[in-house]
Amino acid sequence: MKVGIIGLGLIGGSMAIDLRRKGFADEVLGVEAEPVNAAAAVKIGLVDRVLSYDECIRESDLVVIAVPVGAAVRMLPDILDRFVEMSGNGQDGAKGEFLKIVIDVCSTKETLVKSVHYHPMRRCYVATHPMAGTEYSGPWAAMPGLFDGRACIICNSEESSPKAVRTVESMYDALNMRQIYMSSSNHDVHTAYVSHISHITSFALALTVLEKEKNEKHIFDLASGGFSSTVRLAKSNADMWVPILSQNRDNVLQVIDTYIEKMNAFRAAIAGYDEDSVRGLIEEANRIKRIIR
Amino acid sequence: MKVGIIGLGLIGGSMAIDLRRKGFADEVLGVEAEPVNAAAAVKIGLVDRVLSYDECIRESDLVVIAVPVGAAVRMLPDILDRFVEMSGNGQDGAKGEFLKIVIDVCSTKETLVKSVHYHPMRRCYVATHPMAGTEYSGPWAAMPGLFDGRACIICNSEESSPKAVRTVESMYDALNMRQIYMSSSNHDVHTAYVSHISHITSFALALTVLEKEKNEKHIFDLASGGFSSTVRLAKSNADMWVPILSQNRDNVLQVIDTYIEKMNAFRAAIAGYDEDSVRGLIEEANRIKRIIR
Repeated sequence: MKVGIIGLGLIGGSMAIDLRRKGFADEVLGVEAEPVNAAAAVKIGLVDRVLSYDECIRESDLVVIAVPVGAAVRMLPDILDRFVEMSGNGQDGAKGEFLKIVIDVCSTKETLVKSVHYHPMRRCYVATHPMAGTEYSGPWAAMPGLFDGRACIICNSEESSPKAVRTVESMYDALNMRQIYMSSSNHDVHTAYVSHISHITSFALALTVLEKEKNEKHIFDLASGGFSSTVRLAKSNADMWVPILSQNRDNVLQVIDTYIEKMNAFRAAIAGYDEDSVRGLIEEANRIKRIIR
Repeated sequence: MKVGIIGLGLIGGSMAIDLRRKGFADEVLGVEAEPVNAAAAVKIGLVDRVLSYDECIRESDLVVIAVPVGAAVRMLPDILDRFVEMSGNGQDGAKGEFLKIVIDVCSTKETLVKSVHYHPMRRCYVATHPMAGTEYSGPWAAMPGLFDGRACIICNSEESSPKAVRTVESMYDALNMRQIYMSSSNHDVHTAYVSHISHITSFALALTVLEKEKNEKHIFDLASGGFSSTVRLAKSNADMWVPILSQNRDNVLQVIDTYIEKMNAFRAAIAGYDEDSVRGLIEEANRIKRIIR
């Protein structure tokens, strides 16, 4: 199978490495808008060939959209439009079934799924979210084994053709990902709580301490492992995160509001010398031990 | 030298292990109020002997206060009072210099330092904060090498006798800790920014998602490495953290206020579909890369 990956960053690049390594792809084609990244991807050997967006869609059996979700939401309907044209050209053979598949690997799903809900080629699209990553980005950040043992969400699979779903499942099997099925709206609520808010709390923490650093040059001298752990995600890339927070706006705002409420509860208890309440809040938070080992 | 450690938890227990292993202590004595922990400390072999608070202060050359800072602030003046009594009993020998030393290893320093500022035995006390730890507690959490290569803050050392400071420095040398000197008030500002706030943001994050879990049983199914990293500190122990947040109240409130401001800036930008501002905030936060590798 020929797999074409659009966007050779951390996720696209890491998929390229493992899909070839595991034998799922006979050939991996890549599209990369940024010339420096494209050259790096070839030099590192992430893909067999870098080609144009047009050529990639034409040549690939399975197209993977691995660009930030703001660009993905414009790209997905366009690719399905091209599938319409290609199927009209008789590329689908005698059986009358069109064989190309497109998936995305973005962190929000509702907007994408809605954007093509009525598209005649909707069944060629499978909405997926392989939940893996690091705070780094670009082809240099790609690595083998990134997806190994992690969860992959497949959304609204009933809207995709069973054959397309089976192909995509076997692709994620090759990456050794545990597959979880849910609706795109459920996905976006869940990720707001267990991923998106973590990034915002890290960004806010970084901003807080960086602001203090303007007057206290040595404020970071005592930064410990605990600080590094809570602030690590603040290194995350704006190109990726701006559209995620936009597209998941309503869920994210709801989580931020609950979060600010909890933060204000701490503030009030500490300000009021109310040690019993501070203790109550901490012991309640400690219940996270049950979940995070 | 005989070292007496009061409180055989993560910090006290880990010091016990390494001070003997590195040959700094000929004998390590321990005091532990909790009978189960005391029995465990002996069974694990953290200390040579567990004895009473009275006996420990009488027998030890160097007393280490390793209890939560709420208890420490009552214990420190009491120990210095006992030093007065002992020096009156002529235990200090012919030279007229009293030889016992007491240190604390607590995470806030200003309250402790102030509490004994006018004490006649103030010079026998050295205020220290070895900046190491994990989110676990108790003698079972103690481990060799916990302090290795980490920073240790020594506060207001000019108020301690030079000989006491030298002894304590050689103790932290034995633990291979990098020593940093600052005033207790500076210490408390710094730790509010690079340690205490991280714990509060983690507690608040845990509370936020745990609240959602009441209606969404599977909310944690998708929890990723990023979430674990930002929420890890929410496992931290209330006995330790309640008094830290009380004693460092004013600094902590100031950091919380700045933090809530930053969080509200994100909220406003996301709510207002203002992608430029969201991008600006993220890119500003990304400057943390310079500091956290």
